[in-house]
Parts: sequence; structure tokens; C-alpha cells
Amino acid sequence: MRSIVDKFPHNPIVRPGDVNPSRADFEVVCAFNAGATLYGEETLLMIRVAERPVSEKGWVSTAELDPESGETKVLRFKTDDPGLQEHDARGLVYRGKKYLTTLSHLRLARSRNGRNFTVDSVPTLTGSGPYETFGLEDARMVWIDGWCYISFTGVSAWGVVTGLRRTRDFTTFERLPVMFAPDNKDIALFPGKIGGRYYTLHRPAVRHIGVMAIWLASSDNLRDWGDHHTVIAPRPGYWDSERVGAGASPIKTSEGWLELYHASDENTRYCTGAVLLDLEKPWKVIARSEEPFFVPDQPYETSGFLANVVFHNGYVEREPGVLDLYYGAANEVTCGASVKIADILDSLKSGRI
Amino acid sequence: MRSIVDKFPHNPIVRPGDVNPSRADFEVVCAFNAGATLYGEETLLMIRVAERPVSEKGWVSTAELDPESGETKVLRFKTDDPGLQEHDARGLVYRGKKYLTTLSHLRLARSRNGRNFTVDSVPTLTGSGPYETFGLEDARMVWIDGWCYISFTGVSAWGVVTGLRRTRDFTTFERLPVMFAPDNKDIALFPGKIGGRYYTLHRPAVRHIGVMAIWLASSDNLRDWGDHHTVIAPRPGYWDSERVGAGASPIKTSEGWLELYHASDENTRYCTGAVLLDLEKPWKVIARSEEPFFVPDQPYETSGFLANVVFHNGYVEREPGVLDLYYGAANEVTCGASVKIADILDSLKSGRI
Repeated sequence: MRSIVDKFPHNPIVRPGDVNPSRADFEVVCAFNAGATLYGEETLLMIRVAERPVSEKGWVSTAELDPESGETKVLRFKTDDPGLQEHDARGLVYRGKKYLTTLSHLRLARSRNGRNFTVDSVPTLTGSGPYETFGLEDARMVWIDGWCYISFTGVSAWGVVTGLRRTRDFTTFERLPVMFAPDNKDIALFPGKIGGRYYTLHRPAVRHIGVMAIWLASSDNLRDWGDHHTVIAPRPGYWDSERVGAGASPIKTSEGWLELYHASDENTRYCTGAVLLDLEKPWKVIARSEEPFFVPDQPYETSGFLANVVFHNGYVEREPGVLDLYYGAANEVTCGASVKIADILDSLKSGRI
Repeated sequence: MRSIVDKFPHNPIVRPGDVNPSRADFEVVCAFNAGATLYGEETLLMIRVAERPVSEKGWVSTAELDPESGETKVLRFKTDDPGLQEHDARGLVYRGKKYLTTLSHLRLARSRNGRNFTVDSVPTLTGSGPYETFGLEDARMVWIDGWCYISFTGVSAWGVVTGLRRTRDFTTFERLPVMFAPDNKDIALFPGKIGGRYYTLHRPAVRHIGVMAIWLASSDNLRDWGDHHTVIAPRPGYWDSERVGAGASPIKTSEGWLELYHASDENTRYCTGAVLLDLEKPWKVIARSEEPFFVPDQPYETSGFLANVVFHNGYVEREPGVLDLYYGAANEVTCGASVKIADILDSLKSGRI
């Protein structure tokens, strides 16, 4: 199958080396999974910047935020410390307590053409309070009623929650309450009300029984959410067999709400496909990708911090009908690609439900 | 420490053998974890009745509900079927799909004295729709604005959600939307508004990182929930080291909201203790039990379907200041006990925070 996606020839468009660490003793390990939006003449990316204390031989170190003061605390463990029970690239366990190895914040990058970006020199949004002590991850941006809503994952020793900020000017940001208790992530807010209610896709993680499925919730005020319904589940034997999660905001088309979603299979290969939802009843699935239209096949996607991952959570429709997709590759760098909405809709013809 | 709890001498007050199975080819395995309330002259228990197809040597069987028709489907697997990957008393896995071994419904039992109960001959509430195909579990009952709200756990292949019905007469029941997406359970609704909002305790289960903690959410309408806050976490080294979960509705006292909660330790021993919450700001903890006031020590508690469990999720305050607690023992039978509210508050003096 010829790909309907044109990946930018100069990918990656933002690499960890393009980002100043937030303090001199830190290094930026990953700059990826960017939310995206248009603001005035600019394309804005809200990049997830994952940092860690500069590594020293024989030591494992990480950082967390103090929930009261907001200060960054560095934690260092000798690799032969018997209290250090596990450690790998993504996490460590010390005396029964789990930590992430990196601390993420969200940072704006700006571009006039959507291709070449300049990353702000300081963090835009950092974790604060008790539910974000291990940082903020994977932003989505969408304009609703004149505000740009920025949803993200907040991580702490309490678990993985979904958080929300909003802004009109990208200078001051208003904090909204936690949307969903743990485990939850992958918030994709619809860009306005449907039948009098706001809607969002979300992805609760299950522990005891169940599947890693995309759910839909609705709200009168973007603060209190209810009326939960399932949308799609993983499909055994398919490219989306293990878990599914929403990408950025659903796109309104004449055929339905088009949502580009990520999924992984049993080899932790992350691809992107599409699901088409009813315009009036967005819990009803009209069509779903039999095959992903967007897969990791470039060197910057097939190797890196986590190999074989494309993870899309931001797009801009600069020219009507054409999406510039922004995505994280290999959980390490930020990339871009273009795709026509009509081509995605065509690719769904074989996946009508 | 002398116990402040008087367990009923004639415990268990309801056993599986006291409950008619819902169909002739089923057996009742457990009748436990009852919600409780007063209605007119009667004490009502809403008992969780766990059933399974009558067992046959060489076969494992279970049942689930069809999400469309509501019909009960019996599933039978030969114990030597290679597709049967795991099975124990609580669950089985067949060709990668998880099932519970029992199907639970909720059934009323009635009493004039709160001590001797007659169980209704047919189920009161059974699972329906896609999120309850593996049944309904662990009801709580509370009166709010003239309605008795019955919260419970709904289980299906989608995961473990919290569901809600309400009634004025225990004859007709109105269904409300799913309150919280998976994994969530242990809903304890406050018996009215606080500062203009409804409140509930809930217990999300975490998968990747985090703890099995009690959270608080609030609502304008008992349908949409938000503003999630943590209340209490498990405490390493204590009786509540592994997981905590709310019991029945918080009890208003002059010192604060008194919540009786269950917890398990690393040996899966379930006990009950108390937490005292601020009357105006119920996310603020005033005091918490250093030791449980209610532990499994009777033969019907220390052996059974799941040994060493007392699980309290219903009470009645028949006489002011005295609670009749109803509880599941060993995940198998329903029991009762009496305790004075003042004695619980006294027991919290050493646990002021």
C-alpha cells in the first residue's frame, strides 16, 4: 500500500539537543509527543521535554517536584545500593517506591511555516501540586469558546491523572481541576458542544479485568464529567491488539468526527489509525482503520528511547483539507508529516462498521 | 485492646443456603457485602448474591449476561481443555479472555429488628447493558433528596466501573449513568450537599504507578463528577498497607464526617478502621485509625471463600449514636455487629493528624 502520509524530509524537526535544559545540572533526554495549534501567524507546538540529572557512572538519578514548594528535588541512588530494586530506561523502584527516570515538563516551540521551529528557552508549563510531582506529559491543544485548552497527563506517586490548563494568550495559564482520577490519559476534547454537552475521549487503564479502550465522557462545564461510554477496544490479531488511545481533538468532517488514534500491538509497536464517529452521537463508530495509515519505518522511528513508536497528539489544518501531523518518534524526537483528510476517509472505506 | 464492636451472637445472619438461586441449574456460592438502610419499619439489606452453574466434575463453568438481551449465558470449559489457561476460585482465563467464576446480582433482605432477615425469593437488581455483563457487586445505599441511591460495582470485559440506581419505593428503580470509568469501586456518597456540591468517596485502581487510595469527587447533579482529590493512601507497615476503600456513606458527627473504611495488608487480611474528615472541606483528614477497630477473628471470618476478611459496606443507626454494621465475612456470608459512634471517635484520639 502506498502511504497516504508524507513525512517531513527534514525530520526530526525538534531533537533533545535543540532544547535548553531547565537547569545546568540536567540533560534533555527526549523532546517529543507535542500538542499543536495555530495562534495568530504562528504554529505552536507544546512539546514534552523529558529531563534527568546529568548521569554519573555508578549512579542512577532522577528528579521529582515538591508538592508544596514546587521545587525540583534530585534523587541519586548508587547502582549497587541494595535498596535499588529495579531500574531501566523508563522507571526505577527504590525501597518499594516507584519513580520515573525522567521528569517531564511542557514547552512551546514556535514556527511561521509549520516546518522549522524555535523552542522557547524556558519551560512553559511545569508540574505543581500533589498530582504532578513526576511531571506533565503528552499535551493536546484545542480552542473551545475562545480559550485554548491544554490537556495532559499528570504523574505522581498517587498515579496517572488527566490535567487541564487553559489560556487565551500563551502568557498566562489558568489551572482547571483534575478531569479523571487514575489511571487515565489520552484526553481528546471535541472542539465545541454537541447537542448541548461538551465531549472528550479518554483512556482509562484497567488493572484487574478489562481492556485498554477509548472511552467517551461528556460535561456541561468542562470540569465535571459523566455519562461514560466505550468507543473502541483493542482488536486481537490487529495492529491495535494491545491498547488504543486518542490522539488530538476529533476533526469535524461531512462524514463524521474523524479521530486519529494510536495503538500498540503485542510487540509494543505504536502506529496511528483512524476512527470515524457519528456527528450527533459520537459514541457510535461508523468506520475504523483495518490497517494503520501511519507506521514507524524511518530510522528515527525504528530506533531511539523506545523503538518502533510513532505517537501523534497534535495537528494543524493550515490549508483546508490538509493536516500537518506532529508526532513523537521513538519516544525521543518530534517529527511532522502531512496527510489529506480525504485520503484518510478513503482509507476507511474498507473499515465501515 | 478490648473490642468496641459487638458482633451479633447469631452470625452469620444470611448464608448462601438462605438464598434461592435465580435459576434451577445455579447454586448460590456467596451472599455477602450488603448495603443497608432503613425504609419504613424495616431494615433493608441489599445483598450481593454470587452464583454459578452447579458444578460438574471435570468442568469449569461460569455465566455472563448478554449485553443486548440481558439473558444469562452459561459457559462451560473442560478442565483439560488447552484453551483454559488459568482458573481459581475467583477467575478464569480462556483463550486470553478473563472471566469471573461467579455472576453476582443484588437482592433485598428484610427485617423488623435488624437481626433476623428474610431474603427476597428473586433478584432485585441484575446487570444490564454492556458494563455489567459479569454482574453487580457490593452495593451501598444512602438517602439523598428523598431518593435512595444504590451505588455498586459493575463488572464486564470492559473493566470495573461504578454504577448507580435510585428508587423511592424499592419496587421501581431508575438507572443513572456510569459514575466513573474503570477501574473504580467503593463509592460512598455523602448524604447531602456540602457547600452547594454533592460529594462521593471513590477508589480508583492504578495500573502503572501509584497507590490504591481513596479519592473524593464532587458534583452538581450526581451525574457528572469532577474536582478529584486524594483523601487517604495505604500506609506501609500498617494494617492498611496494601489498599484502602470506603465503606458506606460518611456519618455526620459534631467532630467531622466519620467514614468507616476497609483496608487490606500484604497478607490480604481485610479489616475496618475509621477516618474523620472535615465537615466543610471533606478532603481534609482530621484523624485516622492507628489500628483497625474491627478485625476478622471469628471462625466465619477466618475461613471461607476468601479467608480473613471483614468487609463493611452498610449500616443502620436505629438508636441514636449506635450503629448496626452489616458486613461480609470471608467473602461468603453476611454478618452484623454493633458499635457506638462515640467509641469509634474515642478510638481516633490517638490518630489525630
